[in-house]
Amino acid sequence: MNAIDTKQKILDAVDAGFDAQLATTRDFVAIPSTRGAEGPCQDMIGDLLRQRGYEVDDWHIDVDDLKDLRGFGPIEHDFSKARTVVGTYRPSTNAGRSLILQGHCDVVPTGPLEMWETPPFSPVIKDGKMYGRGACDMKSGTIGALYALDAIKAAGLKPTARIHFQSVIEEESTGVGALSTLQRGYRADACLIPEPTSGKMVRSQVGVIWFRLKVRGHPVHVFEAGSGANAITAAYHLIEALQKLEIEWNERAKSDRYFKALTHPINFNPGIIKGGDWASSVPAWCDVDCRIAILPGWSVADCQAEIRSCVSAAARDHRFLSNNPPEVEWSGFLSEGYELKDSAEAEAAFGKAFAAVYGGAVQDLVFTALTDTRFYGLNYNIPSLCFGASGAAMHGFNEYVDLDSLRKSTKATALFIAEWCGVEKV
Amino acid sequence: MNAIDTKQKILDAVDAGFDAQLATTRDFVAIPSTRGAEGPCQDMIGDLLRQRGYEVDDWHIDVDDLKDLRGFGPIEHDFSKARTVVGTYRPSTNAGRSLILQGHCDVVPTGPLEMWETPPFSPVIKDGKMYGRGACDMKSGTIGALYALDAIKAAGLKPTARIHFQSVIEEESTGVGALSTLQRGYRADACLIPEPTSGKMVRSQVGVIWFRLKVRGHPVHVFEAGSGANAITAAYHLIEALQKLEIEWNERAKSDRYFKALTHPINFNPGIIKGGDWASSVPAWCDVDCRIAILPGWSVADCQAEIRSCVSAAARDHRFLSNNPPEVEWSGFLSEGYELKDSAEAEAAFGKAFAAVYGGAVQDLVFTALTDTRFYGLNYNIPSLCFGASGAAMHGFNEYVDLDSLRKSTKATALFIAEWCGVEKV
Repeated sequence: MNAIDTKQKILDAVDAGFDAQLATTRDFVAIPSTRGAEGPCQDMIGDLLRQRGYEVDDWHIDVDDLKDLRGFGPIEHDFSKARTVVGTYRPSTNAGRSLILQGHCDVVPTGPLEMWETPPFSPVIKDGKMYGRGACDMKSGTIGALYALDAIKAAGLKPTARIHFQSVIEEESTGVGALSTLQRGYRADACLIPEPTSGKMVRSQVGVIWFRLKVRGHPVHVFEAGSGANAITAAYHLIEALQKLEIEWNERAKSDRYFKALTHPINFNPGIIKGGDWASSVPAWCDVDCRIAILPGWSVADCQAEIRSCVSAAARDHRFLSNNPPEVEWSGFLSEGYELKDSAEAEAAFGKAFAAVYGGAVQDLVFTALTDTRFYGLNYNIPSLCFGASGAAMHGFNEYVDLDSLRKSTKATALFIAEWCGVEKV
Repeated sequence: MNAIDTKQKILDAVDAGFDAQLATTRDFVAIPSTRGAEGPCQDMIGDLLRQRGYEVDDWHIDVDDLKDLRGFGPIEHDFSKARTVVGTYRPSTNAGRSLILQGHCDVVPTGPLEMWETPPFSPVIKDGKMYGRGACDMKSGTIGALYALDAIKAAGLKPTARIHFQSVIEEESTGVGALSTLQRGYRADACLIPEPTSGKMVRSQVGVIWFRLKVRGHPVHVFEAGSGANAITAAYHLIEALQKLEIEWNERAKSDRYFKALTHPINFNPGIIKGGDWASSVPAWCDVDCRIAILPGWSVADCQAEIRSCVSAAARDHRFLSNNPPEVEWSGFLSEGYELKDSAEAEAAFGKAFAAVYGGAVQDLVFTALTDTRFYGLNYNIPSLCFGASGAAMHGFNEYVDLDSLRKSTKATALFIAEWCGVEKV
């Protein structure tokens, strides 16, 4: 069997398995695996891996094991059910280069259900798209990688290098799921994360810092106070100050070799607000959960200090806040940005796979969100590729993945595995 | 027994019963009777009334009975446990004028417990003050009125007119508890509500409108949007517009005969805010529960229309809101202001009682909060007096009632009952 035959057999096998792939994807998307509720998704992945004969490592994450590692972000919620699942393929012949395939099974909250056209956890296929929370980000990618491996087997082949198929949690809030696989000792010569990148390769990605503004102050019956002196309007004063910091940081971004091409790479987001207890009581408290991006090479600690100073300075000139200094809590991501480099071999292998499926060369993506690649790349110099399907409304309503693009990215993934790890006949 | 003897016996009886009054007040304050949880307070009042031989009417409120009555405000929560308790004293001799004594047992939320020096529902007496949520507003007043009646009996006297002792709920949110007593048919020649007025008589009080701003709009992953276009910052744009309406209405207040004396009688309060679900998702929704005051004689319907127009106008010139028009929901109070008038007889009787306890004439209070007096006054022309003790931090932390002032207001209440209803020897 020559190389062209091999390639074609794999591509045909992806096509042959695509209906089954979609059925599995649908089952996976149907599990409402928001933060803290990922257990059933991890069970499903464990079952899928065992059915296929992988050696499965399924463990509870101990936060204490991770606290001192680079890129750790603080966990605030009940973490007693947090697990990581890794399925390992060990080759009989060790000829190629080893590979980590990683997907995250956590999804972000749906928001108000009435804003969805179809229920977010009842995935629907319509007009070549699969709709559902997580269909795009990134359950279709995870299942796609599993079926890419299946396609190699269905083509009568087996990889000649070690492969770790890793299903993690917390990608959307801290990244400690990916971090836990490294702490556990999983390593490889390259990593591929099939996030939905619209068929491009993530060249550079932002880091993210999460923080909570906590405003507290003694309130009174509303008849004693004007509307200006309260925790809710004070919190907005801080949001406005942070919007100015966002502008400053976007100015600074103009000196980044990749991000200078974008008009607004740094986004500050006040994502959750909660304050006050009663319409007729002056609000005494207000919490705002925020997210801001930073760029590769920027120090997380320095950026944290800038956020603190920004909040303190804004508080000093404010009637309510100067008497009631607000607090800043670090509430999740404390993540550096990451630039893909020192990855020529892996990219060359991927480039071949890409050319065979899409034609031409893969385009770079300068990404204003983060992915777990940073842990593999920054902590262990593992070249970490991020490439996947097209879709829309990640974190929004009516999220979907485009199924043609999924078929193609699955094919590219399968060919990349064969190219990187090598294959031999079963 | 002459009038001076009668008076002194009643005053002495209040003093003699004051320790017991404080013990009962403490028991009453210890019940966390926030909205929806007033049941045990109503049970306690029912028991206290039955122990004293009053005829007790204890019923569940049917919202449908009230919907078309003047001053009704919409109920949004589970109302299946909502009750009113009325204890009636029927005289053997009908010689005087009948009286309603009304107190509300609902209290506003405590806010964060860590901001209280002592737990809000573990009332503490210290330095002549009783601390606790509701100690001031207005559980001490309600129990004070009960012990004022006790003092008359302890003085060897009994009133010669019908008295309804009414314990209601919802004073802090809609007023439908007071409204339910009128719907049920309870009437009298005057009403006294012993709210904490610092020993003054409420001459004029504001009305209140509650409304909810509902902002909804399609969000996306934060990497796709700048921080300006989201439901949380859009909600703040509406708050700012309503702060301008507050200024306008305060201008208008300068033509009110009583409120013109105050610098800022109309307070707009954004009391509760909730929005967004995830730090890294652009917030798609934000609700703000608001309260604004109106003045006596202002039409509730006209003011509602002004609020709506204010919100619509603010939405039209806003990038996010013009595409996602916000909604205004009426979420509680739709209450007129109330001016005490046509009440010369009741005020004269109260004046005598006041002079005997405090010396001099009772001062007027122009009140920037509302009380239930409006229902009795506006709906049935029942002269409705509002007078009570001193305290602080109603709706705040470390709420307290001053116990000397409570003793005095209890005495004034007892003497007023005797003067208005008449008394005869048991």
